[in-house]
Amino acid sequence: MSKNILAHAAKELGRRLEQLARVSDVRGETTRTFMSPAMGRANALVGAWMQAADLDVREDVVGNIIGRLPSKKAGAKTFLFGSHLDTVRDAGRFDGALGVLLPIAALQVIRRMGLVLPFSVEIVGFSEEEGVRFSSAYLGSKGYTGRLSQSDLELRDASGLSVAEVLAAHNGKSVSAPKAAHSKDDLIGYLEVHIEQGPVLEAKGLATGVVSAISGQTRARVSFTGRAGHAGTTPMALRRDALAGAAEFILEVEALAKARPPLVATVGWISAFPGATNVIAGGVELSLDVRHPKNDDRVAAFDDLGRIARSIARRRKLGFSVKATQDNGAVTCSGSLTELLERSVRACQGESMALPSGAGHDAVIVSSVAPVAMLFVRCKKGLSHHPDEFVHPRDLEAALSVVVDFLTRMAHQPAA
Amino acid sequence: MSKNILAHAAKELGRRLEQLARVSDVRGETTRTFMSPAMGRANALVGAWMQAADLDVREDVVGNIIGRLPSKKAGAKTFLFGSHLDTVRDAGRFDGALGVLLPIAALQVIRRMGLVLPFSVEIVGFSEEEGVRFSSAYLGSKGYTGRLSQSDLELRDASGLSVAEVLAAHNGKSVSAPKAAHSKDDLIGYLEVHIEQGPVLEAKGLATGVVSAISGQTRARVSFTGRAGHAGTTPMALRRDALAGAAEFILEVEALAKARPPLVATVGWISAFPGATNVIAGGVELSLDVRHPKNDDRVAAFDDLGRIARSIARRRKLGFSVKATQDNGAVTCSGSLTELLERSVRACQGESMALPSGAGHDAVIVSSVAPVAMLFVRCKKGLSHHPDEFVHPRDLEAALSVVVDFLTRMAHQPAA
Repeated sequence: MSKNILAHAAKELGRRLEQLARVSDVRGETTRTFMSPAMGRANALVGAWMQAADLDVREDVVGNIIGRLPSKKAGAKTFLFGSHLDTVRDAGRFDGALGVLLPIAALQVIRRMGLVLPFSVEIVGFSEEEGVRFSSAYLGSKGYTGRLSQSDLELRDASGLSVAEVLAAHNGKSVSAPKAAHSKDDLIGYLEVHIEQGPVLEAKGLATGVVSAISGQTRARVSFTGRAGHAGTTPMALRRDALAGAAEFILEVEALAKARPPLVATVGWISAFPGATNVIAGGVELSLDVRHPKNDDRVAAFDDLGRIARSIARRRKLGFSVKATQDNGAVTCSGSLTELLERSVRACQGESMALPSGAGHDAVIVSSVAPVAMLFVRCKKGLSHHPDEFVHPRDLEAALSVVVDFLTRMAHQPAA
Repeated sequence: MSKNILAHAAKELGRRLEQLARVSDVRGETTRTFMSPAMGRANALVGAWMQAADLDVREDVVGNIIGRLPSKKAGAKTFLFGSHLDTVRDAGRFDGALGVLLPIAALQVIRRMGLVLPFSVEIVGFSEEEGVRFSSAYLGSKGYTGRLSQSDLELRDASGLSVAEVLAAHNGKSVSAPKAAHSKDDLIGYLEVHIEQGPVLEAKGLATGVVSAISGQTRARVSFTGRAGHAGTTPMALRRDALAGAAEFILEVEALAKARPPLVATVGWISAFPGATNVIAGGVELSLDVRHPKNDDRVAAFDDLGRIARSIARRRKLGFSVKATQDNGAVTCSGSLTELLERSVRACQGESMALPSGAGHDAVIVSSVAPVAMLFVRCKKGLSHHPDEFVHPRDLEAALSVVVDFLTRMAHQPAA
């Protein structure tokens, strides 16, 4: 392919990411939440870009913006691209948007190259992934894949509105949970391009990497209960200090995860009660977040940490409880798609690296209807969910060339 | 002395403590803060009990209620008793009040025994010790001992009123910081009776104990700074987790204090930033409270803990800071008064035990003008600052007998 076409498309992609980032519900930052006014403007903008790339554009009832390049081949199946257009509050301009705008750019390059794909392509800008408005993630991809449930529709936002009410207002009539946009048989696969949101590619000096699996995730609330007491009058030997027990646990969490890579385990939130300088902590609550690309390893680690906490509590005469608040299984990426993607990465940057995704992505939901693959793009310092989130223009071009190469290879696959 | 007189006085003391506990700014609990309406009613009630014990009663400009039993002996000096009548919010009925009402009962017993003391006695109900209203403790004893400063007068409460304004309203005219009620030469000593607020006497099976020293206290705010990051995408090896560093420090605080009794060191408050389940803590702040009856040992422990924290931070590549927010020296109780008090305790309960006071008391301030001693009284489970605070009636009587015996011994001292 012509270097010039690619460089031109990558530059335009950078400009579009910048332009989209200015579409926000809050002036001066990038904030777009499910079905907000800014989301409507974002869909209009992205829809226009899709049209300019010769895609047929539609919006579904949950607000996903969908661009389709139909194949003229009889019985052609569909290959999906996608990511989300909503953002966290005061976000950066790459998380989500990159996975929608980059495939649009890739199709434009493919067209200029004169290549005709023997399959249809659909690019989806999912309307919700971050879970900001309804404290529940993946509303967009759930709607697209027919996995939106009645209980999802009953979720309420901070103002008391339910998902169902928001959808009714948007569609001008009440809507039930939509059916899947495609049957499984119609789908070849799904590729999501996303910033890594971690520091691994940067540490390895690589612009892109291939995701092996999306880690499963167990979140829990752990509590230790001791006896509050006067910090001045209670001798050390007579204390039952819940915070000292919690501290011991935090270090065990760190040690266990360090000993079992690629396991990650994190205590990010803690609260001690009553929480006064001069009072021994009578109770502590803390969060636990455990992730691993393999389900068995994640479950084993979580169980082991529970046992460790229980033994700390027993030795220190503390009460103890653990309650899982979220438990998502791992998603293994498609072997064949991933292999093809690795070939493209090697062709473009010489070396490929496989890495697990510790964060969840729309691919988790789409994996229920199609084989999935993910391409990670290096981001500065691994920073995301922050206005300083940054992908170097060179890396944008590298990622674009990988996706163009991938589509070219797909077009020449016997299966396609 | 007659067993009957003592038992009768102890019972009345119990009833009075109960009655005083009902004098509150908040219905259904015991809450009295500096210069509040309930403090006025408490002073009126305690003043009446003082009068009934033949004391001359006055209130000073800072709201201390003072009962004086003047000696007829020419050139007689004054022995002081006292504690505070203000309380924390939703307090018990013994903390403070016991040290005012018990000496009144003791003087009544002495009178019924027909004993004439060769020195004057003054019992002070201090108007402020808990630091609730102005976030600064000891306003009453500071006023009584002439240690109230201009900066104390400028302290403001939550409604914006200054101590000076509150005093002006109470006295009907603006008042300056008062002079000491007595010159040092006029004072023989000070005895404060107080619940232990700790579990040591209960563990030893003793009704009362003698305080050897009031521990010095260093309070500090400690902070660790790491790097916030995504809990799912940041491998353990690339983390700079401020909470893991803080956890290590919390365990070192516990270990160091355990190794150096009677040192006590406590982390009672902690906060992690940003404080989310799925974000590695980029910063942690925590409180540190270090107490020891010997100043050198306290200072050494605090310095050692600072060094330990610094070395944890260095090893973990964390930022670190420590800022002392309070630093009070220890107060050693008077050797001669304490010895006399121990004799009384041994006479009344067979065995005496010396223990440091980990909490501060009015005696800290009074020690600047008089030798001080303190009698601790066992309280159930060491509980204080709580409506369930409890002293058994038998222990009230035991403490009363100790103080009566102490006054008797004082009366026969060659010095008196």
